[in-house]
Amino acid sequence: MANIQEIARLAGVSTATVSRVINRHPYVSDLTRERVLNIIEQLDYVPNSNAKSLKKGMTRIIGVIAVSYSTLLMSLIRSFHTIAQKYGFNVMLFMTNGNCDKELEALEMLRSKQLDALLCLLRTNEWDVIESYTKYGPIVTWQRLVSDTIPSVFMDQYQGYMLGLEYLYAKGYRKILNVYSSKGLNTLGRIRAYEDFIQKYGLKDKGFPQFHNKMTIRDGEEVARWWIKQADKPDAISCSTDEVAAGILTELRRAGFSVPDDVGIMGFDNTDIAHLLDLTTIHYPVDKQAENAFNIIKGMLEQAVPKLHSLEFNVVERRST
Amino acid sequence: MANIQEIARLAGVSTATVSRVINRHPYVSDLTRERVLNIIEQLDYVPNSNAKSLKKGMTRIIGVIAVSYSTLLMSLIRSFHTIAQKYGFNVMLFMTNGNCDKELEALEMLRSKQLDALLCLLRTNEWDVIESYTKYGPIVTWQRLVSDTIPSVFMDQYQGYMLGLEYLYAKGYRKILNVYSSKGLNTLGRIRAYEDFIQKYGLKDKGFPQFHNKMTIRDGEEVARWWIKQADKPDAISCSTDEVAAGILTELRRAGFSVPDDVGIMGFDNTDIAHLLDLTTIHYPVDKQAENAFNIIKGMLEQAVPKLHSLEFNVVERRST
Repeated sequence: MANIQEIARLAGVSTATVSRVINRHPYVSDLTRERVLNIIEQLDYVPNSNAKSLKKGMTRIIGVIAVSYSTLLMSLIRSFHTIAQKYGFNVMLFMTNGNCDKELEALEMLRSKQLDALLCLLRTNEWDVIESYTKYGPIVTWQRLVSDTIPSVFMDQYQGYMLGLEYLYAKGYRKILNVYSSKGLNTLGRIRAYEDFIQKYGLKDKGFPQFHNKMTIRDGEEVARWWIKQADKPDAISCSTDEVAAGILTELRRAGFSVPDDVGIMGFDNTDIAHLLDLTTIHYPVDKQAENAFNIIKGMLEQAVPKLHSLEFNVVERRST
Repeated sequence: MANIQEIARLAGVSTATVSRVINRHPYVSDLTRERVLNIIEQLDYVPNSNAKSLKKGMTRIIGVIAVSYSTLLMSLIRSFHTIAQKYGFNVMLFMTNGNCDKELEALEMLRSKQLDALLCLLRTNEWDVIESYTKYGPIVTWQRLVSDTIPSVFMDQYQGYMLGLEYLYAKGYRKILNVYSSKGLNTLGRIRAYEDFIQKYGLKDKGFPQFHNKMTIRDGEEVARWWIKQADKPDAISCSTDEVAAGILTELRRAGFSVPDDVGIMGFDNTDIAHLLDLTTIHYPVDKQAENAFNIIKGMLEQAVPKLHSLEFNVVERRST
C-alpha cells in the first residue's frame, strides 16, 4: 500500500509537506499542493484515520451501555444519538444483557482510547469497577447515583410516582394496585412513595400482592388475568411502564371489561403506546435527560460548563382513569 | 505518557520483549514477564488499541446506516446488533435523516478503515456512489437491489402484499383501500400486487384515493378520519405498517366504530403493536434478514460461504379482519 514516504519521494517534497497537504494546512504553494494531490490520486492513497485520531487523541465516538432493548431505552438512545450526531460524534452501542464482560469491553475501549466517553444507561458491574475507569474519560449515567466522578442525569422516581398516586387519589381511587419493574433504586423510590402515600391519606394496605419485574405488554396481560380472578378487586392499577398498562388494558377489554368503568389504569413514561391507547400516564422527559447526558459529556471533554435542561415529571390525563 | 521504549529501558529489555509481554506471546521467561508487567503497572501504561487494530487491519466495528428511527428499523438493528455482538463485532449507528453527507461519513470511515463493513438499511446517496466504496470493504443492503458488488437481503414486497390481499379476498372483502408507505421499489411492488390482484378477480377499482408516505400511528389516525367522512366506504384497509393499522383501529374505536364489523384492517410487519391490538398482519421476518445480512458480511470478511436463512412472509390472522 502507498505511504506518505512514497508520495513524498514521487512528488520530490518532504513528508512534512505531504502531511500539510493531507491535513489542509496553509503554507503550501498551489503548485506543490496540486502535484501532491495528483500523486495521492494516482496511488489511491487513503490517509488512515485511526492513525490521525491517534495523534489527536480523539475518536469522536461515544459508547452507550445498556442492558436490553426496551421502548424507553430506545427513546433515550435515539435522543442521545441525535444530539451526538449533531455535534459530530458517532455512537457505538453495547448491549450487555447483564454480561459483565461485555460492559468491561466498553470500559476497556475507553481506557485504550477507542472511545472518547461512555454513557452508561444501565450498568452491570459494580459502581466501583466503573468508577475506576473515569480517569480514562468521561462516564455519565442515567441511573440514580451520587458520585464525585460519574455525573448522573437520573430523576427522582419517588416524585414521579407520587404525582401519579396523588392524581389517582384526587380521581377517587382508594384501592390501588402497584405493578413495579426490576428491583433497583428507582423501584425502591416508588415503593417508598406508595408507603408515604397510604400513610398520608390514612389508607389501609389492602393486602394486594406486590408485582415486581413487570415491564412488558405480556407482563401486563398476566396482571390483567390476576385482576380478573380476584373477588376483592383493586379499583386502580398504577404501572411501571406504559407497556404494562397497555397489556392490562387490552387484555381486560378482550375479557369484556371496561376501562376506566371497571378499573382505572395509569401508565408511566408517556410513550407512543400511551397516546395510541389513550392511557393516562406520567410524562418522563427522557429526551431531555439524554440531551443533558450528552451536554455533560461534551462539557467534560471541552472542559466547559454544560447548559442543562431542568427536568420535570407531569401527569398526562387521558381516558384510562 | 509512558511508551514502549520507556518501559523497555526501565525493564532493561528490548522493545520487542515488551511487545511480546503485552500481546501475551510465548518465549518470554516468567521473571522477565513479571518485571515488565510491574513497570507497566507503575507507569499505568495503556496499550493503544487503535495502534493494535491498525496493525491487524481490523476494527471489528460494523457501521449501520439508516434514515430514521421506525419500529421496524429498530427491530432490524436490534437483531443485527445481537448477532454481531455474539461474533465479537461492535456496531456504530449512522442516522442520516436523508442527509447525503452523513452517509458519506460512514462510507469514508469504511474507506479509511475505521469500520470493517457497512450494513446500509436505507440509503440516501445514489447506488453508484455507494458502490464505488465496495472496494474498501463489504457493503450489504436491506433494500431491493440487484448488484454485483452489494449483496441484498431484500424480500419481494409484491409477494408479501399479495398474500394479504388474497387473504382479504378469501374473507369476503371486495372494496379494499391501500395505504402505502414512502415511494420506492417496495411500494412499487405493492402497487403492482394490487393491480394484478384486482385484475385476477375481475374487481373494479373503486376510485379510492391512494394514500402514500403513511407509516406512523398519527398517519393511521388521519386515514381513519378520512374513512369516517366517506359515503361509499372501503370494507377493508390494507396498511403499509402495523403502526398505521393501529392508528386507524384506535381512532375508529374512539369515534364509535367497530372493527372488523364496520371495516376490516390489515397491518404489515407483525410487530408487538399488532399483538397488543389483535391486528391481523403479515409476518415480515426482519430478524432473519438481519442475521442473513450479518452472515453475508462475516462471510465476505472471512472469505467463506455464509449459511443463510430462507425468508418467507406469512399471514398472522387475529381479530381485526
